[in-house]
This record gives sequence, structure tokens and C-alpha cells, in this order.
Amino acid sequence: MQSQRVWLLGFWASPFVQRVKWALKLKGVEYEYIEEDLFDKSSLLLKLNPVQKLVPVLVHNRKPISESILILEYIDEVWKQNPLLPHDPYERAQARFWAKFAEEKVRESTWDALCSRGEEREKAVKSSIEALEKFEEELKLKGTKFFGGETIGFVDLVAGFISYQLPVFEEVGSMKILDSSKFPATFDWIYNFLNHPVIKDDLPAKDLMFDYYAKRSKEISDEKDSCRNA
Amino acid sequence: MQSQRVWLLGFWASPFVQRVKWALKLKGVEYEYIEEDLFDKSSLLLKLNPVQKLVPVLVHNRKPISESILILEYIDEVWKQNPLLPHDPYERAQARFWAKFAEEKVRESTWDALCSRGEEREKAVKSSIEALEKFEEELKLKGTKFFGGETIGFVDLVAGFISYQLPVFEEVGSMKILDSSKFPATFDWIYNFLNHPVIKDDLPAKDLMFDYYAKRSKEISDEKDSCRNA
Repeated sequence: MQSQRVWLLGFWASPFVQRVKWALKLKGVEYEYIEEDLFDKSSLLLKLNPVQKLVPVLVHNRKPISESILILEYIDEVWKQNPLLPHDPYERAQARFWAKFAEEKVRESTWDALCSRGEEREKAVKSSIEALEKFEEELKLKGTKFFGGETIGFVDLVAGFISYQLPVFEEVGSMKILDSSKFPATFDWIYNFLNHPVIKDDLPAKDLMFDYYAKRSKEISDEKDSCRNA
Repeated sequence: MQSQRVWLLGFWASPFVQRVKWALKLKGVEYEYIEEDLFDKSSLLLKLNPVQKLVPVLVHNRKPISESILILEYIDEVWKQNPLLPHDPYERAQARFWAKFAEEKVRESTWDALCSRGEEREKAVKSSIEALEKFEEELKLKGTKFFGGETIGFVDLVAGFISYQLPVFEEVGSMKILDSSKFPATFDWIYNFLNHPVIKDDLPAKDLMFDYYAKRSKEISDEKDSCRNA
């Protein structure tokens, strides 16, 4: 399988793409990376993901797979080495639950916080903190280095944005979400995650992220204002 | 495995619970059903699903599993008979993609249509139709009786609400989403789905659904109005 050609269509700042890159690296799968311009989408992307028109798209055996979490499941099923999901069905269900939680509760509320202003932002910051409290509790309960135990797994890859992207969101939005006194287990996890050999050498540059998210945050909140005033 | 006790905490009108009931029935798994009052949640539910406090919760070997789609994955991993997901990793990724699409694009937009009014409803109806157009295209491409081929599978169970709940939403909201001239493949699928022996004997009563959703739709849109006027 590994000798067959693997492509990844991505976008440098996307946390959805980032988790797929990490997964391929953890598995030792070689692939060709194609950077996509999300503001001027290529005909290749539109052909490979006509339903969503989004990255990441993994192409394996000439077949395209979309949706980053589903791509992780695919990678784990095709390349068995260094499993991302646990073997036991109950443990698998738990891992999938926390990955979904990180994606839908933590990520969406932090993104809303970045892209809103005033009261709406305050509300989103509160939701982000509430979601992180549950994340913190689960990490404490597990008591392991990573969600995946002593090694990085499915939940860690999906939640990875908390370690490197959320601090940029906080800086761009001049807002405080990650408080080390409130989230000690999460801070330990962040430290372990960012120092993992696969992760530390594969992160977008912080200054480029800052500029990109400052611009996106302004564009999106301006759009919302113009909608509101329309 | 099958001799071990299985419980399902559910709510009669929930399409998320319904898909789990169908899956257990397709697998021939006996279980004890516990009806939950979502407007006065039991201490059992709060104990079994403290993070979301939602149904369905499947309890197997005294361990609770939440999130209906993840419960379907669990059921398919534990009870191998009558597989819900295909065997091939690429086909599995496709099934998961369309299940997620039905859940997030079709279901959420039809729910928004039910619970909104005026321009907001028109927008949600338009989104529902656009999502169903993609669903229709995929069904046409497959050309099989069900998403799962000649037998019901993962996507069918997740998309099942389209067959019996969406027509009630349309009636409650006096809105037209499912148009047989526009969605012939979807109408064939609905016919096949509702006539499947496992499905046809396990559907909530239409008159009860009508009353329930009429009430919920009014409550939610009244809340939105009061938020807007606040």
C-alpha cells in the first residue's frame, strides 16, 4: 500500500490539514503535498471535493477522501503501524467522542470568539472556557501524557490546534482563554504535544499565522457588521 | 457479547435515538429501552452522559457510549453480523462522509427551517433543498436501492429522518422542501426505506410527532424573538 502514490491537497494555516500531515508523518507515509489557494480554488480541488470544495483532500490510489477526521480514520485503517485509535471498541468510541468534542465544542467556540466582537465575543470566550474545562477534566481523569496514552493518538491530533493555534487567536483577539492556573493538565498536554518530535518540526510559523488570522478575523467580523446593517 | 446486558436511554421523538434502535434491531441485539424526559432529565442520564446530558446513551458492559453516529460505529465493531459500514476503507470513508453530510447539512438546515420564521426560514429552506440536491445526486450515482447497496447501512440509518421526520417538519412549517419531481431518487429511497421490515414497524406515530414538533417549533422561534427584542 505504502508504495502507492499519496497526495494531500492542503492550505498552510488550516488545522484540519495540519492533523492529516501529522498523521501521515506518524505513520511514516510519504506523500506529495499540494498547496491550495482557498481564495481562488483550483479546478483540481473542485474536481476532487465537489460537494464541500474544501481542504484537506487526501488522494490515495487515485481516490479522493475528504473531511479531516474521516481522513484520520482512513489512514488508520489503511496503514496499521503506530495506531491512532485504540483497539478496544469502547476505547475507540471514547476517543471518537473527545475528538468530536474538541472539534465541535472547543474549536468552533474559539473560532467564534476570534471572529466576533463585543458581547458576542464575550459569550464565545465563555463557551470556549467551558469546553476547555471539560477537556481539562478528561485529561486529569486519564492522567497520561497524551489522550492516546503515552503516545500521540487520534484525539491529540484533532485537538492539536489548542496547542499552537489558540494562543495566536488569543493574541489576535486580545482575549484570555487558556489560563495556566485553571488548566494545568491542558498546559502539561500542550507542552508534551509541542515537544513531540513529529509535531515540533511541523507547525506553521507563528508570525504568518498572526497576520493571517488578524486579517481573517477582521474580514469576517466586518462581513457580519455589514449583514447586520443591511 | 450478545448475552451481556444492553441498555438504551432514549427519547421517543429523537431521530438520533431512532437510528440506534434500528441498528440494534438490524443486528438482532436485544436491549432494554429507558425513555428519558428531556425536559426533566434523570440523574441516570446526567451520570451516564455528564458532558452533553443528551440521549441516546447506549450502555454495554456497564459502560456508557454517547453520540448516535459513534454509537453506530461501536455497534458495528462489537456485533459483526449484518455490517453497517462497508469493509473497504475507501468505501467506509465515503459512507462516513455521506452520513456526516446528512447529519450536518440536511438535518441541521431542515431543523433551522422548522424553528425559524420569515426570511430566516426561507434561507433555511433554500439550504435544505441545496443539501438534498447533493444527496439526490449521490443516490443517482450509486443507483442502488439503499446507500448501503441492496441492504440498509450506515448512511441510510443516519439519513433515515428524511423519510419520516422531514415530511412532518414540512407540514408543521407549511413549507415545501421534498419535491418529488426534483428528487426522484430520494423519493425511491424513502419508499424503499420506509418499507424495510426493520424500519416500517419502528417509527414514531405521525400525529404525536406533529403535535410535538409544532410545540417545539413555536417555543424555539418565540425564544429567538424574545432574544431579538431583548
